[in-house]
This record gives sequence, structure tokens and C-alpha cells, in this order.
Amino acid sequence: MDWTSGSIMARKGVAKGAPGARHSLTIADQGAFHYVYGPYADPVLEVEPGAVVTVETHDAFEGKVTSESDKPTEVLTFPFLNPQTGPIFVRGAEKGDALAVKIISITPRGPQPVGTTCLIPEFGGLVSTGATAMLNPPLPERVKKVVVDEAGVHWSDSVILPYEPFIGTIGTAPQIEAISSLQPDYYGGNMDLPDVAPGAIIYLPVNTPGGYLYLGDCHAIQGDGELCGVALEIPATVEIQIDLIKGHGNTWPQLETEDRMAFIGSARPMEDAIRIAYRELVRWVAAETGQSESDAYLLLTMCGKVRLGNMVDPKYTLAAAIEKKYLK
Amino acid sequence: MDWTSGSIMARKGVAKGAPGARHSLTIADQGAFHYVYGPYADPVLEVEPGAVVTVETHDAFEGKVTSESDKPTEVLTFPFLNPQTGPIFVRGAEKGDALAVKIISITPRGPQPVGTTCLIPEFGGLVSTGATAMLNPPLPERVKKVVVDEAGVHWSDSVILPYEPFIGTIGTAPQIEAISSLQPDYYGGNMDLPDVAPGAIIYLPVNTPGGYLYLGDCHAIQGDGELCGVALEIPATVEIQIDLIKGHGNTWPQLETEDRMAFIGSARPMEDAIRIAYRELVRWVAAETGQSESDAYLLLTMCGKVRLGNMVDPKYTLAAAIEKKYLK
Amino acid sequence: MDWTSGSIMARKGVAKGAPGARHSLTIADQGAFHYVYGPYADPVLEVEPGAVVTVETHDAFEGKVTSESDKPTEVLTFPFLNPQTGPIFVRGAEKGDALAVKIISITPRGPQPVGTTCLIPEFGGLVSTGATAMLNPPLPERVKKVVVDEAGVHWSDSVILPYEPFIGTIGTAPQIEAISSLQPDYYGGNMDLPDVAPGAIIYLPVNTPGGYLYLGDCHAIQGDGELCGVALEIPATVEIQIDLIKGHGNTWPQLETEDRMAFIGSARPMEDAIRIAYRELVRWVAAETGQSESDAYLLLTMCGKVRLGNMVDPKYTLAAAIEKKYLK
Amino acid sequence: MDWTSGSIMARKGVAKGAPGARHSLTIADQGAFHYVYGPYADPVLEVEPGAVVTVETHDAFEGKVTSESDKPTEVLTFPFLNPQTGPIFVRGAEKGDALAVKIISITPRGPQPVGTTCLIPEFGGLVSTGATAMLNPPLPERVKKVVVDEAGVHWSDSVILPYEPFIGTIGTAPQIEAISSLQPDYYGGNMDLPDVAPGAIIYLPVNTPGGYLYLGDCHAIQGDGELCGVALEIPATVEIQIDLIKGHGNTWPQLETEDRMAFIGSARPMEDAIRIAYRELVRWVAAETGQSESDAYLLLTMCGKVRLGNMVDPKYTLAAAIEKKYLK
Repeated sequence: MDWTSGSIMARKGVAKGAPGARHSLTIADQGAFHYVYGPYADPVLEVEPGAVVTVETHDAFEGKVTSESDKPTEVLTFPFLNPQTGPIFVRGAEKGDALAVKIISITPRGPQPVGTTCLIPEFGGLVSTGATAMLNPPLPERVKKVVVDEAGVHWSDSVILPYEPFIGTIGTAPQIEAISSLQPDYYGGNMDLPDVAPGAIIYLPVNTPGGYLYLGDCHAIQGDGELCGVALEIPATVEIQIDLIKGHGNTWPQLETEDRMAFIGSARPMEDAIRIAYRELVRWVAAETGQSESDAYLLLTMCGKVRLGNMVDPKYTLAAAIEKKYLK
Repeated sequence: MDWTSGSIMARKGVAKGAPGARHSLTIADQGAFHYVYGPYADPVLEVEPGAVVTVETHDAFEGKVTSESDKPTEVLTFPFLNPQTGPIFVRGAEKGDALAVKIISITPRGPQPVGTTCLIPEFGGLVSTGATAMLNPPLPERVKKVVVDEAGVHWSDSVILPYEPFIGTIGTAPQIEAISSLQPDYYGGNMDLPDVAPGAIIYLPVNTPGGYLYLGDCHAIQGDGELCGVALEIPATVEIQIDLIKGHGNTWPQLETEDRMAFIGSARPMEDAIRIAYRELVRWVAAETGQSESDAYLLLTMCGKVRLGNMVDPKYTLAAAIEKKYLK
Repeated sequence: MDWTSGSIMARKGVAKGAPGARHSLTIADQGAFHYVYGPYADPVLEVEPGAVVTVETHDAFEGKVTSESDKPTEVLTFPFLNPQTGPIFVRGAEKGDALAVKIISITPRGPQPVGTTCLIPEFGGLVSTGATAMLNPPLPERVKKVVVDEAGVHWSDSVILPYEPFIGTIGTAPQIEAISSLQPDYYGGNMDLPDVAPGAIIYLPVNTPGGYLYLGDCHAIQGDGELCGVALEIPATVEIQIDLIKGHGNTWPQLETEDRMAFIGSARPMEDAIRIAYRELVRWVAAETGQSESDAYLLLTMCGKVRLGNMVDPKYTLAAAIEKKYLK
Repeated sequence: MDWTSGSIMARKGVAKGAPGARHSLTIADQGAFHYVYGPYADPVLEVEPGAVVTVETHDAFEGKVTSESDKPTEVLTFPFLNPQTGPIFVRGAEKGDALAVKIISITPRGPQPVGTTCLIPEFGGLVSTGATAMLNPPLPERVKKVVVDEAGVHWSDSVILPYEPFIGTIGTAPQIEAISSLQPDYYGGNMDLPDVAPGAIIYLPVNTPGGYLYLGDCHAIQGDGELCGVALEIPATVEIQIDLIKGHGNTWPQLETEDRMAFIGSARPMEDAIRIAYRELVRWVAAETGQSESDAYLLLTMCGKVRLGNMVDPKYTLAAAIEKKYLK
């Protein structure tokens, strides 16, 4: 039996975690992409809780980086980066609820080499940026195109990396803000957290009627921190199942897998991101197990697990997790 | 002769810094306030460069905190805070230009005690917040109402503080984002910088046609950092003169006074805010004086002046300045 | 065959990674503990490269927290915390070399309950501290004593945690500074990184003749970040093998295990700690494999692994690692 | 009458703020300089409270940067930087007391051009450093020598800057640590705060018997933040008057001038430095005036003044001040 039968989605979802109607949302259906997470766009699809949706996403560059001789600064136009598919309107979703999104599969889409990474001036984790502004000269810009197939990620003649796909950017609309899809925050967005992968369920806070689910920016593989700022970007076909948790009340994204329960925080400086994630987790563990906050704080001191998503976006993202077996 | 005859506004403005048509924008004209800085609202006023506009602003609480027995958590509704008047459409303004806004006067508006400050749980510079999340119990919430008149700010029986008003929140719309009026950023916004006061000219980057000028959140007085998060908030009548600098190209707000030229940075952590402000200033000094960046960097090491605006908002704000007499 | 035959220690060590003379350093041998990492103490033991040393360490409280009714603020005296055994003088060690310390085993020492954790006012990852100073009231202080035996860590009636011991504090002396054993830095110190565990080899920069190896502060288990500031502290018997890498030239600690190579950075804010670790790793990967720094930067973007040590000490500690199989 | 008759030094000092015996501490008396603040050195002078001492200090480079063609990386040897004169033993000083140091005068010492500034690779506020580590190439290193005389600081043919001298580095010894003179912290040290100037009294916490006062690193002028990391460094003759405040109990440096009372915090990130300074000030204002902490917090929200010392040293330094006229 699938582990998800014991998940929050199955226990508390409007659809009880059961798959419902099937939908498809292709690039053609989408039309114009979105570059902000906000409530000002019109939904491209409306679904009931339980819906299983096959979504086509573009890569973070909307396919404009086509060869290793391209210069990112010449082919890309800020702020029209990180195109998002959506929004999907989920019937019945209201402020204070959570959308549960189970990630079923992620498949690369399009001709080889399907994967792209690059060095972009004033962007990345180990260089001067617009936010951490310095006078040093930039590194030379650079593009690397990579074949991704059944065998994995063909990085070089000697190194094949595993295909470990995940959704880099996924979230709901803020209530009144429309925020760049380059940014992660309390509603999700550009978290670039490798745990948001097939097999996981993410619970996204609903801030506006219908929730307005957006997603995009799939990665074939990414190290912790997305060091240079650009993972192995791929256009993808993503299969998700959407449920609705009424009154779930989480103010930051929550992530559940077979073994773990996590919260995701995004902030600068980095310690503030992990403080957010851990505070949410302390309070959730206390509520779930009937322990005091002080007890939960001590328990997580012993067994909390942290994963760094990104150290390059407008806010840094980290997740704090506990193994479910300690939730007694 | 007014110093402003030598200002950037006078030298490069479309209206040459000369006052043009007079306009009025009252609370009644405004109708619904705005709580985001963005391009999705309809302008409430359209003006030519040179326009002199008398603008009525509300206080940061939209007048809902009426007595010292009010509880902020009961009378305020997030995210409907920090109401903004505007947007004002400036004819001819295009991306890459700057709006020049000369602040002529700021006068309190409404019955005494006209000034409000308070302690709000999970908000402030010396307490746990949603961004710097901790498990400590909050401080008790509290409201203080203060009379502001010709004699100054009547803080207590023994202390009268000076009336040193400024505009806490002012800026243009981002190109595609709509960002909470609680946040400061590259377009201005909730900078809470006491230097944005009568006698100063602020140059705000234009990101969208017409610029979309918003303002609000006037303060009767504020210390450096806006320590508890709430200055002495007042509804006000603000007189400004608006000009347009074509192709000015600044990417962060620039502030000019009789004696100084400054740039304003907003970021977290705080060092990133001052790095932004100083990098902009280094490059501007180099360009303006024909020195190398290295020369300007050394010069500012000797005579740069820094002012802390806020240490409480979603991004912290600092300004870096140089005295004009050293610009030779 | 032991993986360590291919380690840096085996390939480059003065003793070629081979175990040499056996030594013992008991609490009685130690006499007075040290509370700083510095060159001003007299060595308690002098060894040749290859030495295998059995070291007794005390817990971070020097055994002064004896029951759950103790109040840490009453029984502990700052700055006499985190007592260190050592220094051990390694013959031939000079500035620019590295001490290689292979961790063979860690065994709890003393009567049950042997493990101690506690909440200390103004200390911890989710509370106001002397460094992140706030006005909120502190959490109540608290002590928890825990039995650690063959079955594991007896956390509660329902939860047994695994015994996953490591050395919380280990390092060499700075050249002229003497720094609190509560702090981690470029020479090691209070890193509180769970990867510094049996099976790993840590390479510590030598800054002073003899290197002056100190260690202490063993933990029976700890989550990522050491959330409340106090892991499960145990007095322990630690078996280590010490080798010497002449001219190794690392300026930050390097950590090798069977599968991974890592560097450890310590700094505030947290992003600076991981920047240090990743920059060291980028440069090491480039040098080791003959790739450009740019190539190594891209590779680590895809497969870098990050572990958070502490988010509570005077500097935060993170490690950045690469799997050795990608070093081709 | 001198304002200092109402100072803490005059009201609470062992010598009641009155000048006592005169002493001289020349470079020749000093012999070897110190590069750490610690208790392991022998005092070079022992004085009674009230002592007036004329101290010769060297510049931060110990005079090794002699011409504009020098390369800092060639003539300087880390960690032997920022040489300190002292320690001076103050009779009667014990842990929990404060040394009061009134700065009477600072005069440049030695041949012209007496002032030195430079760009040092991997050091400065707008470049990649060892602490904020990046892969960008460094700026070219560079030395600038500057004449300082009665007319001021001869910066260039067209710019003369004022002579505004202060002591860059001054402090007491930690209890058991010996910390690089490049670092500022709770005991003072390399704060690089321009307010530590003639006319001010600094109150430094005593952590070890005799206090162990060190000083050095005088600057002829410096902008807020010491942007490139090197102010206008001068060897100097400094006249100070030392008093002793028994049981003063401050844990961070306190600074008094005719008009203001300030506390100085040093930390990373920068917001933590100003939090420290403001928390100390809130508590001091509350205690001094009999207000609640909450009242003092609100008052400083209105009238607190902040000065940025350095944004380049191992910890950043800021001061938070209140005008004395509001202390009623």
C-alpha cells in the first residue's frame, strides 16, 4: 500500500487523497507564461480537489538559451525569466486552507541536449550580485548544454550524474501581491529545493480564493544551494495530483514524504530561513504529538534534519525535517 | 537663490526644475487606498513634469488606532496596512527614466492627538518577528497617542521632541510586480529614511510607463532605525513638485539635498543594504567627477556618510552620502 | 581493505596513514582543562605522526549539570565552559601543514544517565541571545538527563534515538590568538558538525609549531543545527590516529570519508559560512581534477552536498561536500 | 566649566574625573607591539585612576607601507597587523568595573606624507573577502600617501578634507581570550568608530585584573563604514586621562560626549551589531530615568541616533545614541 494513505492529504483532504478527474495543461493551452506569483492573472484551468493534472513547463530561460555559444545577457530579458505555467484554480480553496500537491512524475520534454546551465554575470552563490554588491569584476559568462536520457545526466566524458528531477518553482498566489517568479517566500515560489520531487506532497498555504497554483522551472539535477544560480534546467512534463486541506492554517510550505515531515523557510540572511522552518516544525511537532514546545525544541535539537535549497535567489531557502518515526 | 537651481532636477529635468501646474489629491479624490506598489492599479491623477501636487495621506494604520486602549492586533487587518495615495501618472515617463520628487512641505492633518506609535507583537527591531523567528514570548502590545503642534511633539510631561517630518513610504511601480507597501526596495517604497524630508529631492527609477508614483506613511519624527517598527505616525498633507529626468538610469533611489548627494539601498542582511547604497554612490561619484572607481572608493572611505533608515521592515534601508563640496 | 588506504592521509601523510605508537591521555593526565584554543598553554602530550591516542574528554559542562533539577545559570560559570583536553604537540608540524586526525571510536564515559541537554537563557537557535539581542523574555531554563547505552539514546518512553556520536569541538591553535572553545573558526574549534564522527578523517590547518591539537565536547547524537544550542552532551573516551600532511596548505578544515570530500566553513551570517566551504571546495576540486574553477563551480552546482553543523555558536558552521566518484 | 564635570567619569570615577599623575608611554618604552587583546602580555605601564598618559601609537601597518609603489601584500605579514601600544595596568580595576578613558588629543607623528590608505586584496567593504568569499577576481592593490598638516588632509589638488582624528582601536583584555587586534568586540578593540575622538569618554568593560588597556590605529579621517577597509592611517601621539568606575557593569563599550550617551555593538550580520547597541541603550535609559524598558524602547524609536563605525572588520561596529536632553 502506498505510504500516502497515511499522509495529511489522505487524512484531511477534501478528496481524501484519492485521484479524481484527469486534466492536461499544455504549453499551447497555457499561451502566455507568467513571471509573477499573484492574483491578477486569469486561471488557465479550474479543477476539483483530487484532480490529476499533466502540466507542461518550460525551462527557466523559456528555451532562449539554445547553444553553448549563446550569451545569457544577450538572449535573456529581465524580468521576463522563470516562466510559470498556471494559475490553476482549485474549487473551494479559501484563505487559511492549503493546497496539497502530490508530485507523481517529472519527464524532460524536447530535443537534446535538453538540459541547460550557465554562468550569468552578477548572479550566483559565489559571486558579487545586485543584492550583495561588490566592485570586483564578474566571471566570464558561459553556457553548458547537457544531454539527459535514460542513462542519466551526461555531464562530461567521464562523469554521468543521476537524473534526480524536481520542481524548482511551485506555489500559490499571495493575497494582494504579485511577486517575481525568481523569488521564494511564504507561498512557495522559487524555492529550488531538491526535496520537492516525485514521491513528495507539498502543502502550500492558500491566500486567495482558488489558491492559484503556479509551477515551472524543473531541474534534472541540482546540488544543495544551487551554487552558481542555475541548476540543470529542463522543459518538462509534470504529473501532479491536487487536493485541498480545509483550514490547514500553515503559513509556510510544508513537505511530506514517506519518512519525513518538513517545513520550508525562505529569508535572508540564511539563519532567518532556517529559523522560520524550524519554528514552524517545532510548533507542528508539539501540536501533533501533544508535547510542549519546549519538548519539541529539545527533540529537534537531537534529530532535526536540514536541507539547503538555494543560496542564490532573492531569499534563501532551507527545509527543516523530522523523521516520522519520532512522532510518538 | 534656492539651492535647487543647481540640482539634477533643475539641470536635467524635462521641466528644468520649474514649478508647473498645481494639482490636489485629497483622501476623497483617492477613494480606496493601495497596499501594494504595482502597475495593476488605475492612476488617480495624471500630470505633466513640473506639476506641484498637494497630496493627502493617511497614517500607516488608516486611522484605525484611535486610542491608547486599542489593541493593534484587534483593529488592524494584515495585509491591509500602510495605505498609499496614488498612483500618479507622469506623462512621458518611461522605463530607464527617473521621477524627481521635491518635497516642499509636510503638515499633520486631523484631530489631536494626531500622532500614533505602538508595539505590535512579532514586529520591531528588538523582538522576535515573522522573519527572525524565535520561540520567546512577545512583549505586551501597546498604543501611545501623542499631540503634535507648533511647539513640537509632546512626548511626555518632561520631554518635547522636535517636529522633524518626512515621508516614510514613497516610490514608483515595479514593471510587473506588485509589492506590499510595507516593503522598501529598488523602486523606493517603505524606506522609512528620515532624510526623505522637506528640502530634499528624491530621484525614483521609472520601471513602467507613467512611473506610477505612490506615497504615504508620513512620520512626525523618527529615530535612526525606527526601532520598535512604528515611528510617530501621522495623517498628513504633503506638497511635492514632480519632474522627470529622461534616461537618468539609476536603478536605486537617489537623494539630493543642498549639501549632499546620496543613494539609498534596501536589503537583508543590513550590510547588503549599505553595500548597494555605497556601490551606487561609488559609481556615480566616479562618473560625475571623472575619477576612476578606485579613486571614488578611496574618497568615500574617507568622507562617506551613512544614515540608517529602518531596521524593521521586510528589507532594511540605509543611505550612503557624500558632501557635494568634495565632488571636484 | 580499509577505504583510508586511498585517503589523503595515506597518500600524503608523514606516517603514510599507518598507525604508530599508542598513547593515552586521561582526565587525570590532563589536569586543568583549557577553555581557549591558543598557543599559550603547555602541551600535555607530545607525539610522532602516526600516533594512536586514547583521549578522555569531559562533557561541555565539565560534569557540573548533574540532575534535572539543576539550573544551568547557577551551576555554570562563563567563560569556563566547553573544557578541552590537550593540547597535543605533533612533532614536525609547522605553519602551512595540516594535522590529519582519523576518528576511530567514541564511547560514553561515566555513570548513567550519561547524556545531558538543557535550555540556557539567551542561548540557542530559536531564542534571543547576546549576539542576536532582543527584549523578549527568555524561555524557562531546563535540564534533561538521558540514558545512553547499547540500545541507543533513551529519549522518552516512546522514543529511542540512535547513538550517532561525534566530536563537537576539535582543532589546532591559532598562531597568536587564544579563542574561546565555544567558537568555531578556520582552525576548527566548536564546529558541532555531526560528520566529524568515527570513520572520518579531519585535516586541520597548522598555525603554530606542533599544531597543538585540542578536543572535547562529544555528543551522543545531534540534529542539524544543534537547535537549542546543547546537543546530547557526554563525557567520552575517544580514540584517534594522528598524522601530519606537510605543506597541505588548507586554510579551513577539510573532512574526508569513504565516499565524500568536504570543506568546513564557520562564519556569520550563515551564507558566509557556506560560501567559505564551497569556495574552498571549488578550488580543491579544480586543483585535484585539473578542471578550471569555472568547471568545478558548475559541477558543484549539480552535485554539491551541504550539512549544517551549528546555528547557535559564535559562528555558524556548515560543510560543503562532493562525492568522490565525481572527481574524475 | 567643562561638560565632563557632569559625566559618569566625574560622578562615579574613583578619581572623580580629576586628572592625576602624568605618564608617558613612547614607542621606545613600548618595545614590541601587541597584535592581540589578551591577558597574556606583561603591562608596560601601571597607573592609578586619574592618570594622564601621553601614548605614542604606530599606524596600522607599523610604518611598513612607505611609498605609493609599495605592494601591501609584499610588505605586510598577517597576522602581525594593527600593532597596539600597551597594555596599561590600572590599579584597582577588577572584573565588573569599567575603565573610563577620556580622549584629550590626537596628533600625527612622523614625517610627511604621514597618512596612508590602500586597497588590499580580499579586504574591504565592497569586495570579496576571506569572510564573504567569492570567486570574482580581486581589484588591483594600491597605496595612497597623504599629507596631513594644520590645513587638513591634502587629498588631491582640488580636495582638502578636514582633520577629524580618532582612535581606531582601543579596549581592554578579555578574561581568558587573546583576540586579534583586527577584531572589535565586547571589550572594544578595532571598532573604527569615528566618535571615539577627542572630547569623548569611552567606558570599557574590565574583564581581568588591572583592565589591561591597549590602544593604537589612529585615523586622521574616516567615513562611516571605513569603506575600503583602510582609513587614513597615521602614527600618532595620543593624550588620554584614565579613570576607573567600580562596578559599572556594562558588558559593551559605552561612549559619552557633551551632548550624547551611546553604546557600541560589534557583530555580524550588521543588524546584530545595532541590536546589541540599542538593547544596551534601552536598558541604560530605562535604569537611568526610571522608565520602563517599554517606554525607553518607544522613546528611542523616536530619537535614537546611529553611527556606523566599520563594515569591513571581522565584526561590524555601530553605535546607538540618545541626546542627553531627553534623559529626564
